[in-house]
Amino acid sequence: MIRMTGELEPRGSWTATGCSVAKAAQLLRSRSTLVLLREAFYGATRFDEFVARSGLSEPLTASRLRELVAAGLLRRQAYQEPGSRSRQGYALTAMGVDFMPAFVALMQWGDRWLQQDGGPLELSHDGCGAPVATRLVCEQGHEVGELAAARRRPPG
Amino acid sequence: MIRMTGELEPRGSWTATGCSVAKAAQLLRSRSTLVLLREAFYGATRFDEFVARSGLSEPLTASRLRELVAAGLLRRQAYQEPGSRSRQGYALTAMGVDFMPAFVALMQWGDRWLQQDGGPLELSHDGCGAPVATRLVCEQGHEVGELAAARRRPPG
Repeated sequence: MIRMTGELEPRGSWTATGCSVAKAAQLLRSRSTLVLLREAFYGATRFDEFVARSGLSEPLTASRLRELVAAGLLRRQAYQEPGSRSRQGYALTAMGVDFMPAFVALMQWGDRWLQQDGGPLELSHDGCGAPVATRLVCEQGHEVGELAAARRRPPG
Repeated sequence: MIRMTGELEPRGSWTATGCSVAKAAQLLRSRSTLVLLREAFYGATRFDEFVARSGLSEPLTASRLRELVAAGLLRRQAYQEPGSRSRQGYALTAMGVDFMPAFVALMQWGDRWLQQDGGPLELSHDGCGAPVATRLVCEQGHEVGELAAARRRPPG
């Protein structure tokens, strides 16, 4: 739960017109978009890899990759295989890489609540091999439990 | 980036049929679903609160709340106002509350990449007031940067 404070209280007094979650949902609204983003996190860069690994049709894959490039999560990147002409692939941008905490949080929530067996993949820290979890923490290092407070962000 | 290890490598050798992210995306596929979940996190419990605060139509709100109950994120909860008959409201279940890290991760990613001014809300730890962030950490306490490793989850 997120407790409204200051100008945000009572919640009935304002309209959430600029909500970042709604904007993110708009951008990532289709299952196919998240599946292609998954494959980018899992290392796909070539169009044929995205098609084969996502199980999506070529036209849908092309259309969604184009949207992800337009939205700024992927960028086109040229690659060349021996004996072939240069072709365009796709790489995660900083904006795309920065989606990883949200991606992992979604995955782990799905693992806990939408799977019988904890889900197919276990993520671990590439350094020490220990399992990875998503945590809400504050800048003082406190774990944030089931309650956070919200205030209007002060003008920048 | 998520590096595939063990049986998961090479990625081209298997199909991600049971993906938790795809399942979560299926469940939360519409912007309106996430907007109503937002209002539940922001304290809405009554149908008229969900309608007024989400800006969605009554039929859409009713339909999406029904889906959220069926999916297990909300449950119906009776309430009674003085002088009125008992009515049904909505409360977050444990599954719904557990979505908070993913919700906050989506919000903060949106704040950073989809807003001009950092977004309208700042979340803070309800205890000490310090800003909240989503972190990927491993059980050894290491911060997970831009690379995690994935292995097939051992049978439970």
